[in-house]
Amino acid sequence: MTRETEVSFLFGVHGHQPQGNFPWVMEEAFEKAYRPFMEVVRGHPHFSFSLHYTGPLWEWIERERPWFLDWVGEMVDRDQVEIQISGFYEPVLAAIPPDDRLGQIEMARAYVKKRWGVTPRGLWLTERVWEPQILPQLIEAEMRYVVVDDYHFLCAGMKEEELGGYYLTEEGGETLAIFPISERLRYIVPFRPVEQVMDYLGQCPGPGAILYDDAEKFGVWPGTHDWVYGKGWLERFLEALEGAPWLNTLSFSGFMETHPPKGRVYLPTASYFEMGEWSLPPFQASEFHGLVEDLKARGEWERYRPYVRGGIWRNFLVKYPEANHMHKRMVWVSKRLVQAGEEAKKALYRAQCNDPYWHGIFGGVYLPHLRRSVYRSLLEAEDLAGMNLEGSWVMDLDADGFEEVVMSNKECLAVVKPLRGASLVELSFREGRVNITDTLARRFEHYHRGMESHGGEGGTLSIHEQAKSPPSGEVIYDVMPRYSFLDRILEPQSSIADWERDPGYALRLLALQGYSLVGDGPFTWRWEGEEGWLEKGYHLLGKGLEVLYQWSFVGGFPLGVEINLHFPWAQEARVEVSGESIAATRVRDWGDVEVVRGVDPSLSSPVMLEVEGRVRLWQVPFFTLSQSEGGFDSIYQGTGFMFIMGAQGERAFRLFQE
Amino acid sequence: MTRETEVSFLFGVHGHQPQGNFPWVMEEAFEKAYRPFMEVVRGHPHFSFSLHYTGPLWEWIERERPWFLDWVGEMVDRDQVEIQISGFYEPVLAAIPPDDRLGQIEMARAYVKKRWGVTPRGLWLTERVWEPQILPQLIEAEMRYVVVDDYHFLCAGMKEEELGGYYLTEEGGETLAIFPISERLRYIVPFRPVEQVMDYLGQCPGPGAILYDDAEKFGVWPGTHDWVYGKGWLERFLEALEGAPWLNTLSFSGFMETHPPKGRVYLPTASYFEMGEWSLPPFQASEFHGLVEDLKARGEWERYRPYVRGGIWRNFLVKYPEANHMHKRMVWVSKRLVQAGEEAKKALYRAQCNDPYWHGIFGGVYLPHLRRSVYRSLLEAEDLAGMNLEGSWVMDLDADGFEEVVMSNKECLAVVKPLRGASLVELSFREGRVNITDTLARRFEHYHRGMESHGGEGGTLSIHEQAKSPPSGEVIYDVMPRYSFLDRILEPQSSIADWERDPGYALRLLALQGYSLVGDGPFTWRWEGEEGWLEKGYHLLGKGLEVLYQWSFVGGFPLGVEINLHFPWAQEARVEVSGESIAATRVRDWGDVEVVRGVDPSLSSPVMLEVEGRVRLWQVPFFTLSQSEGGFDSIYQGTGFMFIMGAQGERAFRLFQE
Repeated sequence: MTRETEVSFLFGVHGHQPQGNFPWVMEEAFEKAYRPFMEVVRGHPHFSFSLHYTGPLWEWIERERPWFLDWVGEMVDRDQVEIQISGFYEPVLAAIPPDDRLGQIEMARAYVKKRWGVTPRGLWLTERVWEPQILPQLIEAEMRYVVVDDYHFLCAGMKEEELGGYYLTEEGGETLAIFPISERLRYIVPFRPVEQVMDYLGQCPGPGAILYDDAEKFGVWPGTHDWVYGKGWLERFLEALEGAPWLNTLSFSGFMETHPPKGRVYLPTASYFEMGEWSLPPFQASEFHGLVEDLKARGEWERYRPYVRGGIWRNFLVKYPEANHMHKRMVWVSKRLVQAGEEAKKALYRAQCNDPYWHGIFGGVYLPHLRRSVYRSLLEAEDLAGMNLEGSWVMDLDADGFEEVVMSNKECLAVVKPLRGASLVELSFREGRVNITDTLARRFEHYHRGMESHGGEGGTLSIHEQAKSPPSGEVIYDVMPRYSFLDRILEPQSSIADWERDPGYALRLLALQGYSLVGDGPFTWRWEGEEGWLEKGYHLLGKGLEVLYQWSFVGGFPLGVEINLHFPWAQEARVEVSGESIAATRVRDWGDVEVVRGVDPSLSSPVMLEVEGRVRLWQVPFFTLSQSEGGFDSIYQGTGFMFIMGAQGERAFRLFQE
Repeated sequence: MTRETEVSFLFGVHGHQPQGNFPWVMEEAFEKAYRPFMEVVRGHPHFSFSLHYTGPLWEWIERERPWFLDWVGEMVDRDQVEIQISGFYEPVLAAIPPDDRLGQIEMARAYVKKRWGVTPRGLWLTERVWEPQILPQLIEAEMRYVVVDDYHFLCAGMKEEELGGYYLTEEGGETLAIFPISERLRYIVPFRPVEQVMDYLGQCPGPGAILYDDAEKFGVWPGTHDWVYGKGWLERFLEALEGAPWLNTLSFSGFMETHPPKGRVYLPTASYFEMGEWSLPPFQASEFHGLVEDLKARGEWERYRPYVRGGIWRNFLVKYPEANHMHKRMVWVSKRLVQAGEEAKKALYRAQCNDPYWHGIFGGVYLPHLRRSVYRSLLEAEDLAGMNLEGSWVMDLDADGFEEVVMSNKECLAVVKPLRGASLVELSFREGRVNITDTLARRFEHYHRGMESHGGEGGTLSIHEQAKSPPSGEVIYDVMPRYSFLDRILEPQSSIADWERDPGYALRLLALQGYSLVGDGPFTWRWEGEEGWLEKGYHLLGKGLEVLYQWSFVGGFPLGVEINLHFPWAQEARVEVSGESIAATRVRDWGDVEVVRGVDPSLSSPVMLEVEGRVRLWQVPFFTLSQSEGGFDSIYQGTGFMFIMGAQGERAFRLFQE
């Protein structure tokens, strides 16, 4: 293999672990991928490459494997590695407030500067979510270049053969360099034999061959540890690179010093191709997938690919209301934190880590421990900022055009949504930094195709693609997010099985109605209709809240009040009623009860659910079915408690931490 | 026709004439469309509608038909019409600096407020170019809603049946309402019989039926004047609307007062569908068109349309370097105008009018009188700002990663581009406010398919679509923008026919090479290669510039220096050489000359081209072929002058206004 013109190989590795990930996952990734990769490249001091690890990963390494930082330092000192940054805790930059974009980038830059004495000038674009509005902050943060996919460039009307270098983009006359990552290289490294990769490098358009990929591909992905290290792929690859007289390895900055830009480019809102499918609603995702499959079947895919596009990353905030609530809570904290100190800001930044806000091939928003980390960090930020925690706010928190109410004191924070039957969207306890209502509804995902379904969001689907085969059996979908204090009018003879089978089961689901604010006292909302009326008033207790119900329905139909709690340590969490204790993940018709105790070893004290007078109670947990890199996961998202009362009455509920 | 649920019909008309358009075009549009439309709707005071006229149109009406403003006033006073705004001079908001977005919107708001005493809250989005970065300025300008196409919503993953109302978008927790215009309504109003439109309104998804379209469709477009007024379509349409008990007409604001938002939405960078095709490079535009035709032929278009997308508006700045130069000049003036007064700002804003920066179905960048208006306004802004005009700037003006040089004095401004053989990109005279080098190169456009071609940018093309039939015959394409002082090494026996037939004709086209700055004195650049060397130094005279050449080529090959001038009044412009005068649009081998005089009645005085000693001169004008609403236009873009000299020498050129 040889080539006539020299090619510069730009190789970047990107290592990331989500904020709040399990320590054993971090450790495994380190031992299987990060460490062995560095061991090999250290032995090849003439192999130049670029490195981006995210903040959560650096912080873990600093705590658990501090010597590894010196390895990096050695390579920095001998100019073998260029360190690149992103927002420190790996936020999707377009989705966080402008000041935080700047703050996160500057935090990352300061970290690298302090640790290794170099000032990074290159930005790894988290999830490669490009939106033009981030450019002013990148320029203000003195970034010189950013790395995206070649797909971004194809979407801007360029041809693959025009790539192989960097372009300039511009805003208000200020320019920034943009490098396109070669998808072909991403697909063959490290999976194909070294010779094949060298063949490609030997004939790819120059002057640059640009690769940037997940560090986890080199050891964590199934089979890769043995292939890359055990069978010596990486060692042989580096030797082949060194042995090719027509090739040199360069950092991105090194390439910029020796090569001019290839032109000017304006990119649309884009990420990598697959993100376009993931961010669409499920039915549309199926249609989209169908188009792709059709074009592939006709051999037209390569030609038409640049013109086929799905949704954008921010559509996830429409697709998952739970992600949107976290996001808007985060934006609100950010607004109130303008004057806060560094530690409070860092807590806010941790809450901006991208993973829990979306879902593609990894669990993302489906993973409770990642969502928990967001709420923990937000509550921490509020605590550390020294802001006034006492008060209530009437405002459109979640940006849906309707007002929500936030009630807060020094011990807890509650968010009520009048538009959805004045339900409780969030109840967070400050001491333990936990949102006990952090559930996720069961939704149809396009990869559920072919499974039997019941409930609300399914609908009909035309089936276009060959999916991974999902588990057989019935899937149940929720009709709305699993908020708490969801009201409904029930039939007198309803049973727990009705509800288990159909989460929207009701004569009328009042929780889908808008309730109106009444009176001047504590926050009280009212619903009125042909079937009667209902009022409910919220007020905070010290460490929790009380909800006072008054209602009267015609025809003797009972009221059902649904409360959905998320127990963080699902495997160990117990529900205790009248001296009996069962797992929170079990179904149970408890009969008449007065006090429910939720005991979870991860909580500082039990969660109590009290109702005045004895009331019938059903307990039904709910589990989502989502895809991950390994296959399908059934994940505990919460336990539903349905309290069934008469056709009229007055009753107080208390939800608090003991 | 009847329907069960009431529908609100939101009808907006958008009238626009480009800044710098010919007065007779304005007048014809007024008499054929704007006036008769208003005459009819004035007679139907219960027909509510929304109106957006752009600044250039309001200003013409104010001067030429001031009584028309009172007609509008009457309808405003009786709440029949809601006035909406955009940036006053109709800029693409995403393409101008953030402060100017705000300034243009505020100027439009102040205009309406002063004229009719109302404060507009709705924004017509110019060319419906949505990019997320404009949102902060819309919110800062207190806009409550913006109007885009339904296509934008489909691109965000929505279904047509989910529209029929407005959604909220959000940035940093701040929200803005967005209305989707129904494409189906746009396609049938006013072209189909009234009954058919009413049928559609009778069964469209509600609660809103949203139409916003060009006012020119009601009288200017071929055949529409007779159809809409002569045959009484509009009168009958308004009567039908009034006679439908299931329908009411509402302003956009009125609809918002009575209807909540339908949800939340995040839009990608988008415009209307066709813009996606127009903004692509020609070969890609053909591929794109091919995909669309293929899907239509297979009956899959309706299903897959949301996933088929072309380029974005800002790609025009890559496609047409001449548009990019205007744009970056505008951005530079904007930067230097921060402290300037109102009149200077207004001149800048006029230069931001969108039309001359792009090309779709209308002439756009192909129309010299619109480009002229940009330069006139920029030069006016510089004059009025009272800024220091004397100096030179070395900077990357056009954002291509390489430095250009701007030289300016009180009488003229020159821009030199070292990367392109130190050619002259602009020479503007301040007194007459004209850029005498404002040419446009002949480029392949995808609608040229099927025509014979010669020259640079053609390439091979797979033909996919049924095009409008272009004129037969040969089309010639330029190999680079028609800057001035483009150098080349010629063959000794070259003839004017060689150049006429092939504008890139040369042994070596030095103008495509980068020249290096040498010395510390006046700006002098040097090229050196196997074939010899060349140096050229620029300096400003009072009202023009001098370029001093020194060169030596091996093998006796002559130097050709090409100068391209644009004469604004092409039909009347004359070139005078040695007492002889011919039209600037003629081809001529002048033989040996010393002085060339360009006489154009629109210029305050002739343009002179002097060369030291007698030199052979060819004159070849160039015309572009572009599409417009009416068909194909051949447009004069400039006259090329090629000076042919020996294989070495030293010679001064002077280009100035007499």
